Amino acid sequence: MKALVFDDKLKLDNNYKNPQMGENDVLIKTKMVGICNTDYEITKGYMGYKGVLGHEFVGVVENVGKNVDKALIGKRVVGEINCACNNCSYCHQNLQRHCPNRSTLGIWQKDGCFSEYFTLPKENVIEISDNIDDITATFTEPLAAAYEILEQIHIKPQTKVAILGDGKLGLCISLVFRAMNVDFVHIGKHIEKLEISKNIGVKTMLLDEITDEHRKSFDVVVEATGSTGGFETSASLVKPRGILVLKSTIAAREGLNLASIVVDEITIQGSRCGQFRPVVKLLEDKKIDVKPLVSGIYGVDEFEKAFELNSQKGTLKVLVKFD
Amino acid sequence: MKALVFDDKLKLDNNYKNPQMGENDVLIKTKMVGICNTDYEITKGYMGYKGVLGHEFVGVVENVGKNVDKALIGKRVVGEINCACNNCSYCHQNLQRHCPNRSTLGIWQKDGCFSEYFTLPKENVIEISDNIDDITATFTEPLAAAYEILEQIHIKPQTKVAILGDGKLGLCISLVFRAMNVDFVHIGKHIEKLEISKNIGVKTMLLDEITDEHRKSFDVVVEATGSTGGFETSASLVKPRGILVLKSTIAAREGLNLASIVVDEITIQGSRCGQFRPVVKLLEDKKIDVKPLVSGIYGVDEFEKAFELNSQKGTLKVLVKFD
Repeated sequence: MKALVFDDKLKLDNNYKNPQMGENDVLIKTKMVGICNTDYEITKGYMGYKGVLGHEFVGVVENVGKNVDKALIGKRVVGEINCACNNCSYCHQNLQRHCPNRSTLGIWQKDGCFSEYFTLPKENVIEISDNIDDITATFTEPLAAAYEILEQIHIKPQTKVAILGDGKLGLCISLVFRAMNVDFVHIGKHIEKLEISKNIGVKTMLLDEITDEHRKSFDVVVEATGSTGGFETSASLVKPRGILVLKSTIAAREGLNLASIVVDEITIQGSRCGQFRPVVKLLEDKKIDVKPLVSGIYGVDEFEKAFELNSQKGTLKVLVKFD
Repeated sequence: MKALVFDDKLKLDNNYKNPQMGENDVLIKTKMVGICNTDYEITKGYMGYKGVLGHEFVGVVENVGKNVDKALIGKRVVGEINCACNNCSYCHQNLQRHCPNRSTLGIWQKDGCFSEYFTLPKENVIEISDNIDDITATFTEPLAAAYEILEQIHIKPQTKVAILGDGKLGLCISLVFRAMNVDFVHIGKHIEKLEISKNIGVKTMLLDEITDEHRKSFDVVVEATGSTGGFETSASLVKPRGILVLKSTIAAREGLNLASIVVDEITIQGSRCGQFRPVVKLLEDKKIDVKPLVSGIYGVDEFEKAFELNSQKGTLKVLVKFD
C-alpha cells in the first residue's frame, strides 16, 4: 500500500507492508489526513520516531478484529491517537493518553495514518454521522487538543482569558473556546489570521496593541505561539496567582527567565491531547466551522507539495486526500 | 543609626537617617537579622533595589504611630515583609503579598531591617511569646515561604512528594513539611545537609541514587535548587499530570526545555512568600528546630565576615545580631 514514511528522510513508499490487525483492533481505510506541526518536527528528529507519519484523520472501517463488533465495518470514523494498556493507574483513571505503556499513532512506536490503511484499538475509534464532512472530521484531533484546556481548567464567566498565537493551534483553541461560550481575547501578529476569530465574534488584538494596562491583567493566558518570546509575553499578561496554559512545546534556546513565575506565583499548566467525544458533539451540532483554517488540499501523490506548503509561513492546515 | 546599605556596593553606614514612622506604623528596634539569598542577589542587581537590606528579623517594638495600640510597645515581634495598600482586589482577598501597590521590606521601595531601627505597618507585625528564642524567630520568614506551598497545594496522605535541593531553602521546606506530617523524600547532593532532615525522621536520597524507577513517580516535586539542572531533574521526577513547585527563581541561561511539561501535562506552581501566623504557631509548639541550619552568628560590625561566610559553598543560615 501507499504510505508516507519517515526514516531519516520523508518519502512516499508505494509498497509499504499492510498493517497487521490485532483481535481488538479496527482496520481503517484512510479518507483524509491533516498535517500537524508535530509531523514536521518528527522530520527534524522529534521523539526519534521512524515509521509512517500522521495522526489526524477521517476514514472508513474496512475490517475488524475478532473481538470487535462487525457492525462497525463500513462506518466513517475518527480516532484517538494514544493506544493504551488499559491496565495501569492512568488507564483506570480514564487518562489513557498518559498511559506509560502507550504507543501513539504516527508519533511513538505505532505507524500513523498517512497510508492507505492503518489500525487502531477499538476503544479509540468513534463513529461519526454524515453531518460531519471529511474536512471537518479531520480537525477532530487538533480541536480535541484545544478542548483539553477546558478539561484541565475551570473557566468561569468572570474569568479573564487571552489566547496568544494565531497559528492553527491558536485558531483551533479560539474555535473551541468560542463554541463553548468562553469570553476571551485572541492576540496575534497577523491581521488576516485574527480575522478568522473576529468573524465568529471573538475580540482580537494585535501583539503591538498590548500596553501596560494589559500586563498582569488576565486570569488565564493560553500560550500557543511556540516561541520563547511568546512564552515571555504570555507570562507578562497573567495576573499574580493566574494560570498560564502551555499548549506548545517550547525549547527555549536563548534561555527562559522563570523569576516572574515564582514572584507572581503563576501556575503553568502543560496541556496536550484531549478527549474526542466532546468535540465530536460540537461538530455534530455545527458549532465549529473549520473551513477558514484550510490552506490547501492535496492528493497523496502530491505529498511533497503538501509538506512544502505546510512549511511556508502563513500556512494554516494542509490536508491530504487518500480517496 | 547603623544600617547596612546597598547602593552599587554594600557598606555599613553608621549615620544612616532614622526611619520615619507613619500613623499606622510600628517602629521596631532590631534584635537579630538573617541573611537570605535574595540579599545576595540584590547585591548582584536583582530588582534594581537600593537601600537598606534585610527582611528576616526579630525585634522589639520601640514606638507606635498614633493609630496603633500603645500596648504593643516593648513586645518582641516578627513581621510580614510585604506592605500592601489594603485597598485592591488582592488585598481584599487577603493576598496582600500580591498587592500590585506593595513595597517589600529590604527588597522593593522600602528600607529593610539590616539597621538598628525600621518600620512596618501595624498589620504586618506579629507578637511572639518568650517560648520562641531570637534565633528561631528570625527563621519565621523563610519558614513561612516554605509553608506557602501547603497553602497553594493540597497534599493528601497518599500524595507522593519529593523536595529537591538541600540548601537552606530546601531544608526550611523539609522542616515545615515534617512538622506538618507530610510524607516525603528529601533529595540533595550533600550527605551532611541531608543529615539534618534524616535526624528528624525524613527519608533522604542522594541525587546520584535517582534511578529510572524514580522517574515520573512523584505527584508533587518541590524544586528548591535554583539551578537549571535542578529544574530538569525535578521535571523528570514528576508523574504525568503531577505538580512541580517552583520555589526558587531560575534564570535558565543555557535554555530550558519545557516539552515534557506539555507532553506530561505537568502543572508548574510558582511559590513565594507565605503567611506568618501558621508558622508562628508551629514555632510556639516547638514543632520545628532551626538550630541545625545556623552556620554562624555575627555582630553587625562584622557584617563583611557574615556576608563572606554566606557566599561560601556549604553555608546554611548566617545571622547578624544587633543587640
